[in-house]
Amino acid sequence: MIPPPDVVPPGAAMEIHSEELAERLSGLLKANDTSGVLRQIESVVAADIAAATRHLEEDESVALLKILPEEFSADVLVEMGDDVREEILERLTPREIADAVEEMASDDAADVVAELEEDKATEVVDLLEEEDRAEITQLLLYPEESAGGIMQLEVVSVRQDRTAARAIEKIRLAFPDVREDFYYVYVTDHDGRLVGKIPLPRLILANPEQRIRDLMDEDVHPVPADLDQEEVAQIFQKYDLPSLPVVDRDRVLLGRITVDDIVDVIQEEAAEDYSRLAGTDEEEFQEESVYRKAAIRLPWLVTGLFGGVLSALVLSRFEHDLRAVIALTFFVPVIMAMGGNVAIQSSAVMVRGLATGEVTHRDATRRLLREVGVSVITGIVCAALIFFAAWLWWGDLRLGIVVGGAMLAVIFISTSVGAFVPLTLDRLRIDPALATGPFVTTSNDILGILIYLGFASWIYRVMA
Amino acid sequence: MIPPPDVVPPGAAMEIHSEELAERLSGLLKANDTSGVLRQIESVVAADIAAATRHLEEDESVALLKILPEEFSADVLVEMGDDVREEILERLTPREIADAVEEMASDDAADVVAELEEDKATEVVDLLEEEDRAEITQLLLYPEESAGGIMQLEVVSVRQDRTAARAIEKIRLAFPDVREDFYYVYVTDHDGRLVGKIPLPRLILANPEQRIRDLMDEDVHPVPADLDQEEVAQIFQKYDLPSLPVVDRDRVLLGRITVDDIVDVIQEEAAEDYSRLAGTDEEEFQEESVYRKAAIRLPWLVTGLFGGVLSALVLSRFEHDLRAVIALTFFVPVIMAMGGNVAIQSSAVMVRGLATGEVTHRDATRRLLREVGVSVITGIVCAALIFFAAWLWWGDLRLGIVVGGAMLAVIFISTSVGAFVPLTLDRLRIDPALATGPFVTTSNDILGILIYLGFASWIYRVMA
Repeated sequence: MIPPPDVVPPGAAMEIHSEELAERLSGLLKANDTSGVLRQIESVVAADIAAATRHLEEDESVALLKILPEEFSADVLVEMGDDVREEILERLTPREIADAVEEMASDDAADVVAELEEDKATEVVDLLEEEDRAEITQLLLYPEESAGGIMQLEVVSVRQDRTAARAIEKIRLAFPDVREDFYYVYVTDHDGRLVGKIPLPRLILANPEQRIRDLMDEDVHPVPADLDQEEVAQIFQKYDLPSLPVVDRDRVLLGRITVDDIVDVIQEEAAEDYSRLAGTDEEEFQEESVYRKAAIRLPWLVTGLFGGVLSALVLSRFEHDLRAVIALTFFVPVIMAMGGNVAIQSSAVMVRGLATGEVTHRDATRRLLREVGVSVITGIVCAALIFFAAWLWWGDLRLGIVVGGAMLAVIFISTSVGAFVPLTLDRLRIDPALATGPFVTTSNDILGILIYLGFASWIYRVMA
Repeated sequence: MIPPPDVVPPGAAMEIHSEELAERLSGLLKANDTSGVLRQIESVVAADIAAATRHLEEDESVALLKILPEEFSADVLVEMGDDVREEILERLTPREIADAVEEMASDDAADVVAELEEDKATEVVDLLEEEDRAEITQLLLYPEESAGGIMQLEVVSVRQDRTAARAIEKIRLAFPDVREDFYYVYVTDHDGRLVGKIPLPRLILANPEQRIRDLMDEDVHPVPADLDQEEVAQIFQKYDLPSLPVVDRDRVLLGRITVDDIVDVIQEEAAEDYSRLAGTDEEEFQEESVYRKAAIRLPWLVTGLFGGVLSALVLSRFEHDLRAVIALTFFVPVIMAMGGNVAIQSSAVMVRGLATGEVTHRDATRRLLREVGVSVITGIVCAALIFFAAWLWWGDLRLGIVVGGAMLAVIFISTSVGAFVPLTLDRLRIDPALATGPFVTTSNDILGILIYLGFASWIYRVMA
């Protein structure tokens, strides 16, 4: 048996631990040694087993889940990576899934059911006990990325006119059904409307006869069930909270969202923005198949390729000028690259600001003007440098003027476009991170070439 | 007075709320209406005031902090953005800072002291009470981005041989010094070594005579004080925990890290990777000054510019070939752009995988081979498309062969380099996110041109 590590080891070692655990489990499963498996899992928690399943064959994971105690097996399913779980769920019967789902917190249960194919989901839901069925059906009505979609219905609340002692008594009675990870007791009025919260330590340490009303905090920051999860995450971060209550339009308490789910939301949203900036999709980060990875990247690349062919066509229209002054071609790459660089910088700043809530439409104009200001400074510096490089090394003043002038114009325009597009997309309720995608960058490339060669043919005519 | 919003409004509205609050506070401060300010803040929490300071003048924020009750004012300082706080701290006397610091949790106190200039920090520390001084001095010894650097020393622990009732009694006695946001009571042996944890709800609801030893969970996942914060974040995410204990080499409990600090770490690390990919620095996301924003972007741009000039020089060495077949120049942009695109895709996948712990050095070779596999598929598709485009539209088979062949080679090489560099940087303990920076992308550009034109001059000689 692997002893649990005394002190959690750094990342690499943690991963080795998962692989070692997987190897041992795999050996025991092959030998049909059920009691060996059960002994092995005594020293680990569900998250460890879930991590190990990434290194197990599908058959082995399925066999393992059937051996584990029901509750443990449900936890392992919850902790697993989405991609692994999807495959495992296909191999389990509706009955097996229903048994696991009944052990889960309502939010995890709803997520698992939502991942199933429609027919199987219906079968599983039909097999559930009345109460679980009602809960899951309710949760599935909310959009996946809304507060309602990530909340759980398990929430501890007491009426404001109770005493501390009665409140604790009530929690004690409800305990078998309540998970151990609650930090706040929410306080409601007699209509179930949320009026406050009490941190659990305060409730315990209060005078037993004190009224809840006098112990509670009123700043409870309820979120409406239809609020987008990204905005929920912003509220968590602003107020540094372990959980937030979710309410309906009448402020009636529906459920709560815990910070560990918010950590996942933050990672997801960050991965999404990052992958868009890199020209891929966040799905790829978990994808194992080379073919599917290539399929995810190709749309970006083919769009870029199409843009490249358009650039080639634009360049060929200037063939006459390029033949006359071949040195003009040498600077095409740098003009295009710099246009791309500044556009990415300014769009990334906007995308990030919109994601964290630091950029709002109220101050959009001020933000745009600031980017224009930045572009003037960076443009002048870069234009001056390239002007001297082109003039001195190639000994052609006109070339210097053309390259420097085009650089200034391209940086100015590309920075502004880069900042403007995400703001516009966001206003149209389209993900602003698309601004860093291939369509916008490609348009910028072509615009850059047009500015450069248009300016060049004008200057060479004027200064001929 | 602005009533607290009934239900927390979405992001934009939240921001308006901050600005409105700032305007009201500003008006009251101008009128020297201290009691008005105090009435105003009754309905909000420190995080709201902190958000409002972003819209206040420095003078106003400083005046506000002096009016607020000491504890509240300390909370506002803690919740403020780093950039705003830095300016405010410069305006406060060491005495004022020391008074605020004494109200803070130890981790926040140490962060504030670490932000001060050295002389002022020493003055502040000297003004602190003995106990606070010792704590802060201890915390400042840990690297800023390690578990020790983000932990707080306030931690609730009990001995394993106590009963539940005595444990609660002990917490009650310690209460005035303990913050209300603890979720686990940690369990130690008689040498102070960590042996387990009890969720607070379980402790409260237990039979008072039960021994702590029999109530506790042993899977407590202690982290060593020198563990990097990114790896701490990975453990939080793997086990979905609200807090983690920090221990020394003998497993003696030192403090704890709470998940709200981890949320900040995750945001920070994501912002860092994102900003590097975009060619800027995460500092810029909070920067207001146009000059400083430009200064942050310029190193990236100037490196890119330098690379562009090198590309121009490389192109000029092939002037003869370019003059002979002017159409070759038309495809320079697309070859370079595609090389850049695929390199960014594969490095981003690696950088992200290393950041989340999904990619480890153990499976580095497998990951690299997978990227090579992806490059073969994407390379063949893109090469075929551009081959036909060049051949059919320009009616030159050799051009098609040159452009298609170079595309295949460039995609193959750039993808592999893109995947290899972050792995190597990580092995050298350098931030792998630098792989998406200007140096690597520029080298890739030049490599792309060399491959393309080298291949071109060979083919045109061979097929002349």
